[in-house]
Amino acid sequence: MAQQGFWSLGGDNAGANTGNQSPSTPRAWCQAAASKLSGGLGSKLCALLNVGELEKGAEPAAKQPPGDRACCLRLQQILQLHQSFCGLLRPLFNSDAKTMIFLQEVVDILMAYIVESFDRDTKVIDFHYPNELLQKNNWELQSEPASLDEILISCRATLKYAIKTAHPRYFNQLSTGLDMVGLAADWLTSTANTNMFTYEVAPVFVLLEYVTLKKMREIIGWKDGQGDGIFSPGGAISNMYAMLLARFKMFPEVKEKGMSCVPRLAAFTSEHGLVPFFVSATAGTTVYGAFDPLIAISDICKKYSVWMHVDGAWGGSLLMSRRHRWKLDGVERANSVTWNPHKMMSVPLQCSALLVREEGLMQSCNNMHAVYLFQQDKHYDLSYDTGDKALQCGRHVDIFKLWLMWRAKGTIGFEAQIDKCLELSDYLYNKIKDREGYEMVFNGTPQHTNVCFWYLPPGIRYMEDKEERKKHLHKVAPVIKARMMEYGTTMVSYQPQGDKVNFFRMVISNPAATLEDIDFLIEEIERLGQDL
Amino acid sequence: MAQQGFWSLGGDNAGANTGNQSPSTPRAWCQAAASKLSGGLGSKLCALLNVGELEKGAEPAAKQPPGDRACCLRLQQILQLHQSFCGLLRPLFNSDAKTMIFLQEVVDILMAYIVESFDRDTKVIDFHYPNELLQKNNWELQSEPASLDEILISCRATLKYAIKTAHPRYFNQLSTGLDMVGLAADWLTSTANTNMFTYEVAPVFVLLEYVTLKKMREIIGWKDGQGDGIFSPGGAISNMYAMLLARFKMFPEVKEKGMSCVPRLAAFTSEHGLVPFFVSATAGTTVYGAFDPLIAISDICKKYSVWMHVDGAWGGSLLMSRRHRWKLDGVERANSVTWNPHKMMSVPLQCSALLVREEGLMQSCNNMHAVYLFQQDKHYDLSYDTGDKALQCGRHVDIFKLWLMWRAKGTIGFEAQIDKCLELSDYLYNKIKDREGYEMVFNGTPQHTNVCFWYLPPGIRYMEDKEERKKHLHKVAPVIKARMMEYGTTMVSYQPQGDKVNFFRMVISNPAATLEDIDFLIEEIERLGQDL
Repeated sequence: MAQQGFWSLGGDNAGANTGNQSPSTPRAWCQAAASKLSGGLGSKLCALLNVGELEKGAEPAAKQPPGDRACCLRLQQILQLHQSFCGLLRPLFNSDAKTMIFLQEVVDILMAYIVESFDRDTKVIDFHYPNELLQKNNWELQSEPASLDEILISCRATLKYAIKTAHPRYFNQLSTGLDMVGLAADWLTSTANTNMFTYEVAPVFVLLEYVTLKKMREIIGWKDGQGDGIFSPGGAISNMYAMLLARFKMFPEVKEKGMSCVPRLAAFTSEHGLVPFFVSATAGTTVYGAFDPLIAISDICKKYSVWMHVDGAWGGSLLMSRRHRWKLDGVERANSVTWNPHKMMSVPLQCSALLVREEGLMQSCNNMHAVYLFQQDKHYDLSYDTGDKALQCGRHVDIFKLWLMWRAKGTIGFEAQIDKCLELSDYLYNKIKDREGYEMVFNGTPQHTNVCFWYLPPGIRYMEDKEERKKHLHKVAPVIKARMMEYGTTMVSYQPQGDKVNFFRMVISNPAATLEDIDFLIEEIERLGQDL
Repeated sequence: MAQQGFWSLGGDNAGANTGNQSPSTPRAWCQAAASKLSGGLGSKLCALLNVGELEKGAEPAAKQPPGDRACCLRLQQILQLHQSFCGLLRPLFNSDAKTMIFLQEVVDILMAYIVESFDRDTKVIDFHYPNELLQKNNWELQSEPASLDEILISCRATLKYAIKTAHPRYFNQLSTGLDMVGLAADWLTSTANTNMFTYEVAPVFVLLEYVTLKKMREIIGWKDGQGDGIFSPGGAISNMYAMLLARFKMFPEVKEKGMSCVPRLAAFTSEHGLVPFFVSATAGTTVYGAFDPLIAISDICKKYSVWMHVDGAWGGSLLMSRRHRWKLDGVERANSVTWNPHKMMSVPLQCSALLVREEGLMQSCNNMHAVYLFQQDKHYDLSYDTGDKALQCGRHVDIFKLWLMWRAKGTIGFEAQIDKCLELSDYLYNKIKDREGYEMVFNGTPQHTNVCFWYLPPGIRYMEDKEERKKHLHKVAPVIKARMMEYGTTMVSYQPQGDKVNFFRMVISNPAATLEDIDFLIEEIERLGQDL
């Protein structure tokens, strides 16, 4: 349907430039244009210009005024009809035109939201307390259907109160930003609406997962990209899958006989005489962005035959950067690696990969021989069925957004995006490390984009009683954050850590952010916090 | 941006009907129309009609021919320019017009795919073996970026080889069909691109999850909808979460001290002297669609104080139907229930809920007190933060598609949809149960939409050697299925079960299916299988 000649109005473009072969009247041109445009836009225009395509029951357009204005008048009638239609969409009704108009209206709402999201004059958030928000709209579920107009109103209301996670001044989480190719890929994924468990129901997506996981293993440094892997719903699940593999590798009987047949296990080495089976080294901690020394850890794991896992949910993406990948030196010695492209690579949520060095282990650990799910006499190569590789059977298609973004940017594009975010955090660090009113939480330059700092309002800057000062300081970040949300100007995370009172943790993963946004953040913290 | 007056071309609609206040020329009308349309369509039309909005570097439209054809000529120039643009999208470049045009082109591709998917003359699948498919397109990831044209080609190729899961003759899985409101909601979810772990980053979605889970608990029959729950990535994870809760409920020390501190546990009662802690009753098995007797099971669970879980991943949706919910009588006595709206309710993948009767237990079982994720001094009611209720921290937003579909259909709409699918399976059952060449796999009418049957080609119908006949019959379903996929006409699942050789398992969850599609399936099985 969507053909090469999408944009051309006729067979002879050159002719149109001289006007020779253009349709003779504007109305004819409109109709020719509409009929040539494929998909949503074409359907919408066709629906505007021809009642013929609408279902029976449409009020017939009785008297057509002649001439060029006919399309305008016809349009008016159809639009009035449209106002009153309610819910006769695919798949229940054979109503392509109405379906396309509805979807196009939703897309228009989404496009407007995207434009707004990147606009620095728009609020990051229109904040309301939960009980207020409950009253802002009718969120309750009813017995009776709502009209499509009401559905569109619900869409608008939902976006009105949503956080604009694409906003260049949204720094609140490790996952920020909105990549347009990634978004398009996610829309396509929703439309394809399938499941990852077999090649049979997701041939392309299964192949793309295969291709991409292999590429990621090559980047980790495993010979010829050999090994295994899977995309899972987030870092916690990826890490859990790694622990299950490690336990199975050391005690295969655990699968059949359960935990009572294995000695008492310990993740991390321990002094209590337990059996260490799993070390999880972190590449990029959540708060400090710190990297464990992977080479030293791998030496110990090798000596004691313990499974080495690298949790690179946050830091794994630095493998894409020639300038920063040394921070993960030794990762190639790991047995398994968690790497979340939905964090530092700005792939839409969720996209988390577990990479495993040993081939076949995932299958041995997790397969349940459910022949009703994985028939062994199918006519294609069954090694492409992935549903027995993990605790999950069905899995959401998370691969396409990563694959399409990778294709659009190339490896060098991802590298540039990651390097840019690290440069921005470097700029922030240098800007505040000696600035009056700021104290850094840890010594030395940040390893990742995490910059952790206290802002001290003038009133407590020179307080002599250290305990009193600490007590005050603990309240500063929460108040500034609450004010940020009420003004809606920016969002950044804060937390205490051990004996350290509440401090700001700035992270940068949004490619839309610029130096000016960093400057703005500092000005805003000072504006909102100076009276505290 | 998307305002109420979206569709009106001027302030006075009535005037347009008499022609008095219509724009004076078609070109003026086009411009007025384009400027009134919000979002993507508006941007696209504006981009077509005005070079002014395009970035600098656009070739200026030098000499404008006068009159009504101006817009056509301007259009040609812009389109040629557009052909050559490559990749300057948001968020890296401040290029709203290009971004919107790109997204609109993707939407057009998706709309065309949707129209095709519902068309019975289209193949369900354009099947290729894995090694063939690898060669059909360049799926490899490169160092260098691709152009946006290449990205669009990738999108088209991906959909060309995808399974049309919305197709009225796709019966292969428990999850089939594509609901337009659900799809729109999923596109919106992708665009909002946030995470479910706190109210802070997903205020609306967290509230909608709260509202919907409460409604689902009411439907289960728990007093005033009290209790707890969460949406998880699929039935396997929902069921696992239920087991963790049951284990924690009986042995809270397991959280701190691990499995070695609890006796050897057994899920299901057992004769081996172990401690039963968990019974999982199934409401709707995968192959037969059978329902366990929940009242009888609940009596036993109550007597022995064992956690009762109902795995209603497939059958839970029958709770929405007044005619069929008796099959789950006793579900209100369960401690936890898994219910996947992505199966029988046709919500886009994935959408799985775990409902829990006891309030507070999910939090006690799973919270890790990670203050860096869940600050305790935030300015809103922290009970809305959900990130500590499960093993996952981040969760994909799976609620909006269910909530928006529920709003669009109402409870009665879901009921009608479910009842219709059960009626279709009843029709199928009655059609084949006494038909020559068919044998049913289990006795009696199906409880769910699962109809399990053998098709016996004429050649083996009267074979006397029972073993020989069985051996032949085992090969029939796989060959017919392979032929279905090669012709691409329909898809239905098959499997062996215990000592039963391969049989077809037909399920109906796609609201697009009709009686004619059931007839077609039977004709197609006979056409493809008669020579076997």
